[in-house]
Amino acid sequence: MSITQEHAEDQNLPYNVFAKACPSRGTLEHVTGRWGALTLGALREGSLRFNELRRRVDGVSEKMLSQTLQALERDGLVHREAQPTNPPRVDYELTPLGHQVAGHLLALIRCVEDRMDDVLAAREEYDGRQN
Amino acid sequence: MSITQEHAEDQNLPYNVFAKACPSRGTLEHVTGRWGALTLGALREGSLRFNELRRRVDGVSEKMLSQTLQALERDGLVHREAQPTNPPRVDYELTPLGHQVAGHLLALIRCVEDRMDDVLAAREEYDGRQN
Repeated sequence: MSITQEHAEDQNLPYNVFAKACPSRGTLEHVTGRWGALTLGALREGSLRFNELRRRVDGVSEKMLSQTLQALERDGLVHREAQPTNPPRVDYELTPLGHQVAGHLLALIRCVEDRMDDVLAAREEYDGRQN
Repeated sequence: MSITQEHAEDQNLPYNVFAKACPSRGTLEHVTGRWGALTLGALREGSLRFNELRRRVDGVSEKMLSQTLQALERDGLVHREAQPTNPPRVDYELTPLGHQVAGHLLALIRCVEDRMDDVLAAREEYDGRQN
């Protein structure tokens, strides 16, 4: 039995990230995780090679980027294309599903960036109240 | 000198989550973190008490929910209101900024839930290729 069928038959409910056991929660974590969100956001601008992506997602380690890309590829959000060149060259790009998800993420990212002055003002106010 | 001024003067750039040192990256992590996203999503429906929130965000521990709410309150996304009742009652609700951020998050959450059949199909296909 596939995971999809199992889920549907056990619960007879649509997917719901608020339920601990729903597989959608894991996917939400992949796309919103520390590096997942930035990786998807970076790929929204176009396909990138591993090292280009590593430079764009400032601060990510090689290992974490590999793991992030693998989870996103497995979830069908990123397509990995190995070019038959010497040395081998690997490009990563968003799938149509990845584009849709990354579009929502970028809207969220831009909102956070746009409102950072308000966030920092709130932090100062909060910290002032604690002292 | 405030953090805001420091940031603006050092970099003379808008906020950018892709830069490791930008404070917007921390806020993105608070709102997309394992519990931050679900907490904001839950509060989009209206104000909730701590225990109501804990039931809605299935699987969160008391400690993690406290820490999550504190970070979101400090960032100006959540407002905490202690009622002068006996026993004391504490309500949490989104600020206008929190509403804006949570709106983008809910759009992302709904997109992930809507596309989970495709995600699970991609996983099966990926796992089949690995064996």
